[in-house]
Amino acid sequence: MKWPLHGSNPQYLYQSMGVPLPDHYIDFSANINPLGPPPSLKEKWGQAFELINDYPDPKAYQFSIKAAEKEGLPVNWILPGNGGSELIALIARLLAGKRVLIVQPAFSEYEEACKANGCQIGYHILEEGKWELMSESIISELDHYDALFLCNPNNPTGTSFSRHAISRVLKESAAKNCFVIIDEAFYDFSEEVHSFASSIQTYPNLMVLRSMTKMYSIPGIRLGYAIAHPHVLKEMAVFQPHWSVNALALMAGEECLKANEHVRKTRRYIGMQRSRLVKFFQENGYEVSNFNVNFYLVRDSDYIDQLPLICFLLEHGIVPRHTYHFPGLEGRWIRLAIKREDENDRLMEVLAKWRTVK
Amino acid sequence: MKWPLHGSNPQYLYQSMGVPLPDHYIDFSANINPLGPPPSLKEKWGQAFELINDYPDPKAYQFSIKAAEKEGLPVNWILPGNGGSELIALIARLLAGKRVLIVQPAFSEYEEACKANGCQIGYHILEEGKWELMSESIISELDHYDALFLCNPNNPTGTSFSRHAISRVLKESAAKNCFVIIDEAFYDFSEEVHSFASSIQTYPNLMVLRSMTKMYSIPGIRLGYAIAHPHVLKEMAVFQPHWSVNALALMAGEECLKANEHVRKTRRYIGMQRSRLVKFFQENGYEVSNFNVNFYLVRDSDYIDQLPLICFLLEHGIVPRHTYHFPGLEGRWIRLAIKREDENDRLMEVLAKWRTVK
Repeated sequence: MKWPLHGSNPQYLYQSMGVPLPDHYIDFSANINPLGPPPSLKEKWGQAFELINDYPDPKAYQFSIKAAEKEGLPVNWILPGNGGSELIALIARLLAGKRVLIVQPAFSEYEEACKANGCQIGYHILEEGKWELMSESIISELDHYDALFLCNPNNPTGTSFSRHAISRVLKESAAKNCFVIIDEAFYDFSEEVHSFASSIQTYPNLMVLRSMTKMYSIPGIRLGYAIAHPHVLKEMAVFQPHWSVNALALMAGEECLKANEHVRKTRRYIGMQRSRLVKFFQENGYEVSNFNVNFYLVRDSDYIDQLPLICFLLEHGIVPRHTYHFPGLEGRWIRLAIKREDENDRLMEVLAKWRTVK
Repeated sequence: MKWPLHGSNPQYLYQSMGVPLPDHYIDFSANINPLGPPPSLKEKWGQAFELINDYPDPKAYQFSIKAAEKEGLPVNWILPGNGGSELIALIARLLAGKRVLIVQPAFSEYEEACKANGCQIGYHILEEGKWELMSESIISELDHYDALFLCNPNNPTGTSFSRHAISRVLKESAAKNCFVIIDEAFYDFSEEVHSFASSIQTYPNLMVLRSMTKMYSIPGIRLGYAIAHPHVLKEMAVFQPHWSVNALALMAGEECLKANEHVRKTRRYIGMQRSRLVKFFQENGYEVSNFNVNFYLVRDSDYIDQLPLICFLLEHGIVPRHTYHFPGLEGRWIRLAIKREDENDRLMEVLAKWRTVK
């Protein structure tokens, strides 16, 4: 079977399964904020129409200023991109032909983009179930690589690595001249997560990636930014198409960076839903990752391959994210997003039913 | 002086000149449709807000289908991109390290993107004033190159090359195994222009680029597409970031492809304004390119460097496009867009004044 490489766009998953797309479904395969975009964005939408009529600022200056303020860094330490995936493609271009280590399971774009650029790829596969970063083990591999990709909190597991372990890896990477990319696309969903953005001032071999599409629920307009030393960003920007970040993304980005209350509200909501879900999974014999963000891995331990559960969910209008492509998971788990309360209720209802019918 | 590389975003031109951005100005530096986007787009805008909330279709399938229908080609002969500039960056990536010939003066992104990818760049410089394609002369150079960039109608001159000359070049390029990219970003502004999109079926070494941002006046949301043999597009797509074309661009693109009446109306309008402007230039001693699209080159022949005229225009709130960066022009002309009738009137008023005060 040809599985789609990513979540969202459920039509492709149904297509792979040979199941017709139902009229009603809930998409648990995309990891975006269940509360939607900040309300202020909708208010500004009408007047935003005028923005389509003119070229976006190719330097994305106003947005960069705001992002830099938020990060407490000068503006030339920020490079906005057409979503996190463009930034990953640009880094991969910079790393063309180099040796790249990826902490797996992880977001598949690191490998895709690096492969396209002729990199030699190695995996550091995390121990299944715990998915903890064992810094000593990873450090011993660094000699053989020019760059390391790390996602924290990690997608698809939903788990976070210990601050101490990442610090150790960073320090050793600097000594070994290995470039480190930490993708923090989901860092703002939990107060427990430590961001390494400020460590860039200590480690010029570090880059941190931010996505605006997850927390602010704007995946349709594409916006993210890279944080790194200006000389790194300058090298990367050479490969970036002119006017790469569209004018609506820039407007929305500025608006989102002000939406602190929306972020707080989201975190509370995610925390509450997480408690309910974890309790349900424990009480109903499902195994779940130790997640602290807006998505998680879950499985019915009676099965190795979760295909029967995937089919059951799809038939009941619940769209999960399969994990067949993830090294270290290979279909033994499914990934689900935290959605709105009523949608999570429906998920639990279907998962409870699965227990009775399988 | 550090001139900005592109038109639009006049703040950067004023900044270069050390002149403060006035409250009121008319931007003649961006080549977009003076009639704005198709009216139907505004009608759909309100409901388009929902699109920001979900990932765009990474295959851009619905839009590609419509574009393919328009071009009379199968859907896999179309690759949508985040504006023409992303497509140029992707081609340049594909051509990394190769020898590339650019017919100059031309849109600067061809050279920028190819340089970033370590290409060896050569220029075929058109004869100033005529800017005609002398096919025999260019054919004799093809042996030394792997690829040729050609813009037709040509930006920044606004002139079009003869169908016969391009056909000759295409035929010889095929024989010499030289890849040809024809950027037709402005082809739809004039009925006189022949598109070479259908020639791709004969020449697998040909790629045609389309921009949606010029005719449909949507530069803020970025959309274009490449037309080429599926095997070429497949190689190119490997380097394209996932979800590169945003959801609003896809929606707008589908809408724009239906807007045939808007295209006809625009052509009539451009034709009418062109006649008025050409008459004015002839009567007032300005030299103008033999243009048939929505922009042109013009100069005051009393000067070689047009800097005094640029300053005068900026002081009067008219933003021209300088030509210092264009090989074969080097500041001896300015480029202006055709704008709305009242704006063109204002331009002529200021240019008439320049005649009396300089």
